Amino acid sequence: MEYKQTALIIIDMQNDIVLPDGPACVRGALATVPTIVEALTYFRNNRRPVFHVVREYREDGSDVEITRLEKFRQGKKYALPGTPGCEIIKELAPAPGEYRIVKNRFSAFMNTELDFMLRRLDVTQIAVCGTQYPNCVRTTVFDGVCYGYAVTVLTDATSAASDAVAQANIADIKNIGVTCCTVREYIGKQ
Amino acid sequence: MEYKQTALIIIDMQNDIVLPDGPACVRGALATVPTIVEALTYFRNNRRPVFHVVREYREDGSDVEITRLEKFRQGKKYALPGTPGCEIIKELAPAPGEYRIVKNRFSAFMNTELDFMLRRLDVTQIAVCGTQYPNCVRTTVFDGVCYGYAVTVLTDATSAASDAVAQANIADIKNIGVTCCTVREYIGKQ
Repeated sequence: MEYKQTALIIIDMQNDIVLPDGPACVRGALATVPTIVEALTYFRNNRRPVFHVVREYREDGSDVEITRLEKFRQGKKYALPGTPGCEIIKELAPAPGEYRIVKNRFSAFMNTELDFMLRRLDVTQIAVCGTQYPNCVRTTVFDGVCYGYAVTVLTDATSAASDAVAQANIADIKNIGVTCCTVREYIGKQ
Repeated sequence: MEYKQTALIIIDMQNDIVLPDGPACVRGALATVPTIVEALTYFRNNRRPVFHVVREYREDGSDVEITRLEKFRQGKKYALPGTPGCEIIKELAPAPGEYRIVKNRFSAFMNTELDFMLRRLDVTQIAVCGTQYPNCVRTTVFDGVCYGYAVTVLTDATSAASDAVAQANIADIKNIGVTCCTVREYIGKQ
């Protein structure tokens, strides 16, 4: 049987984005924390690579997406390095040996070392979760497919502002051939 | 007259790479510090953007170039985030409003936000200095040209392990149409 290494990619589960009073709160994110913990525990127990992908923005907005820049400059600032809001929520804090990847754009692959590091680890399959579906999750999934990874989206560990948005994105993602399943379904298949 | 914004790009002037006892010391680097200070002062006085590009490697080597990996694992570790060796040498410490760009590969453009940030600032011209000529400086210069920037190399603010290596690289760089001049010549032309 061909050896296939699988990595878990957890996206943007930072205080500013997950907690209800966070300036960039995604409504569905907090409810997924226990399920992400299940996935994370499974990967840890099986000694598989884990990548925690996070946003970071410079305080002057010089690296913020152009469509978000005006609000950012007007005061909707978040994911500033060194602030508590930028930190990964405590339930999902990276363990030694896990990787933290900083991104300034939607996709975890864009202008980051993620692809290089996955290749080094012989990873050919990735399981993606976190937040939020229409932006960072979806662009990461599409880029992952483009780079040649077998991608699975862990649906009950991934979130959006509403269930309607989540379902619409899952439908589109399935349509390009990406597996979408729950964490327990995923673990059951391993 | 067309407005052209110019940015200064200072490459890899970190303690581990510049200081004589640094594990990745480039012999010519320390001698260029006063000249880089001149260039930096000029850019600061003229309120032009400054980018300090630095190496960072993860301690387990998972993001080190494949050709450097064996030595890195054998103990030649450097540019580890959080260590004094990873810091920019004190004479060139970034001032508020200047940018620090982290790279894991040779070119300052590869998998970094540099190009996006330069574009945001309307930068069309870059002046490059730092260390070392054959690797990070040269790849940055070539990529800069490929991305459409007018590139100048500040020759007396840029270094290599030997003058022969520096001169051979300057010749190649001139041959693709990049301006190579001293810091004083550069300032004189502004």
